[in-house]
Parts: sequence; structure tokens; C-alpha cells
Amino acid sequence: MKHLEEKILKEGLVLSDQVLKVDSFLNHQIDPFLVKEMGEEFAKRFQNESITKVLTLESSGIAPAVMTALELKVPAIFARKNKSLTLSENVYLSEVYSFTKREKSTIYVSKKYLNESDRVLIIDDFLANGQAACALLDIVKQAGAHLVGIGIVIEKAFQNGGSLLRKQNIRVESLVRIQSLENGKVRFHEEALL
Amino acid sequence: MKHLEEKILKEGLVLSDQVLKVDSFLNHQIDPFLVKEMGEEFAKRFQNESITKVLTLESSGIAPAVMTALELKVPAIFARKNKSLTLSENVYLSEVYSFTKREKSTIYVSKKYLNESDRVLIIDDFLANGQAACALLDIVKQAGAHLVGIGIVIEKAFQNGGSLLRKQNIRVESLVRIQSLENGKVRFHEEALL
Repeated sequence: MKHLEEKILKEGLVLSDQVLKVDSFLNHQIDPFLVKEMGEEFAKRFQNESITKVLTLESSGIAPAVMTALELKVPAIFARKNKSLTLSENVYLSEVYSFTKREKSTIYVSKKYLNESDRVLIIDDFLANGQAACALLDIVKQAGAHLVGIGIVIEKAFQNGGSLLRKQNIRVESLVRIQSLENGKVRFHEEALL
Repeated sequence: MKHLEEKILKEGLVLSDQVLKVDSFLNHQIDPFLVKEMGEEFAKRFQNESITKVLTLESSGIAPAVMTALELKVPAIFARKNKSLTLSENVYLSEVYSFTKREKSTIYVSKKYLNESDRVLIIDDFLANGQAACALLDIVKQAGAHLVGIGIVIEKAFQNGGSLLRKQNIRVESLVRIQSLENGKVRFHEEALL
């Protein structure tokens, strides 16, 4: 997605060879027009898949997931990280380890909103080691739902999440794929190398 | 907002005299069309206020805030709850106590995205005791920005957050105001009583 690549080059901060910060338009401040365009692009790529639910993980996945859901005319669900007192026990649970935050957290989705009749598109902001995606995948499996694919805003293609998922024959669509963050510079994956 | 009242009557779960659960369209599963309508309504009510930023708190505020920001053609910011390792120290901090989760958390907004030239609209999903709104208000004050008002999806008018804020001459616009959840029944505030 050209606009997204341009935005990353203009505003993304390379904090290390592993970490790209996009707090100015996705992870803290949100550019609503760019996020809407993300939603339109995901919806276009998965348009013939009869998707019934878009599934993401709080918090940074919510904006692109809701915009995708709006285009696909289906509900979005965000898996929650902390058990709140108002949620009953009737949930699918999984665990995700965040390398950025160096902590493990339990995520859950209510059984009311996901079942075996659903065709699910998972949306997330980043794909690095695939921890979050695998936890969401686990929840889709527990629900007996059909996974249509995974839509990722920014894939760090130099980490192993993408290949881990594609090896399982999962369709992963990333709006941009980053080849390297070495020397403080963002280099995008050439389409020909996909 | 008529559609929202209807949705609450149809799908809202009254868990106690104090707690209304709207997990089917706002706090866990999201109805993207209803949330878009919320954004349009907030934007309409605050349209002449030259707003520059929409501010909310992760996670449930994000969807209505982004839809409002889209309509107002400005960025949205979501205050974050957990300090991540990729965020620098250059932040406004405040504290919020959640009665639902029975825990205190620190919230923060990067100083890069909010300053004295901003005209801010705060958006949140619920207004009960006003804890979250007051913490966001505190951050707007720290930034020296101008608070235009607060847009609330569901105000529990039988709790004191609304009056606490309105007493400070803050414009609070709630899409629905709930008078009572007694006897397991949602009763809305009559407009004439506003």
C-alpha cells in the first residue's frame, strides 16, 4: 500500500534493527483516513471470502479491524487482554507473549460472538514473531470457525511470524512488508521477492 | 440517539443496578455501522468548534473516537494504559481508577501529539463516576490545550460523573443517558429533564 509506505518513511521511527515505532498514525495517534484506506484494502483483498467476522486484539488492531468490518459489512471483535469483572466465564482463552512489553498475557473472546458457522478474518497491526496472530488463530480453532486469512498492516518480514503462518497454508496479506530496519533505515520487501 | 437506545434495549445486559453490559456492539464485539453513526453524531454536535484532536482511552473508546475523528478530519489519540518499552519518557501522565476492574492504572499521552495549540474533544464509551474523563481532562490541562467538550456514548446519569463535569462548565454530550438500571430494566433519561 503506497500511502502506507510513504507514511512509514516520513514518520516511522527506527528504534533498533528490530523495532519500528509508528505512534504518529497507528499505535497511539491514529490517522483516520489512512486507517480507513487500510480497511478498504483488506476488504478488497478478501472480498470474495464470505467473511462473517473480523477478529483482532486490543488495542492497536481495533481501528484497522473496525474499518475493515465496515467495508465488509460484518461485526468486528476485539479479543481482550485483562479479565474484567463484567465478563462471564464463557470464553475462549489463549496466551500471547509480547516481545516488546516482555510480558505474557491471557487473551479471551466470548463464546457468544464466535462459533463454527463463522468465517473469520484476523486483522492485526504488526506481524513479527507471530505471537498475537497464533493466539488469535488458536481462538478461531477453539470456536471451530473457519479462518479465511490474516490481514497485517506492517509485516516485519525479517522475523519469522510470516513464514510460520504461511507454512501452515494460511493466507497472510500484509499491506507493507519490511525487509530490514538495519542502520536506522526502513527497507521494504520487493514485491517480486514475495 | 435513537438507534443506540434501540440497540441497548435489544442487546444490553443489565448485570446489576450499576452495571450495563454492551459487549455485543461496543465493548467486545463492535457494530461498525452503529459506531460510525456515533462518530457522525459527535462530529455534528461539535462541528463548529474547530477541533484539532480527538482524545480517548484504550480500548473501548477507540472505535467511536476514530469514527468521530474521520468525520471531523483530524487525528485521534488514544491514551495508553501500560507503559511499553518502545515509548520514551516524554509523556503526560495521569491516574485512573476503574470501579469495574477494581484497579488503578496509569495512563499516558506522548507530548508529541498534544500541545497548547490544540482544541481537544474527549470521547469515551461510558460515563459513570467520571474517573476516566477526569484523567483525560488532566492530560489536556497538562498539555495546556483547550478542551472543547466531552462526548460520551452511554452516560449513566444516576452516577455522579456527569454532574461533576458539568459543574466545571464542561460541555458534556451524551448519545444516550440512562436514568436507572433498577429491577433489571434500562430506563432512559427523558430529554426534557436534561
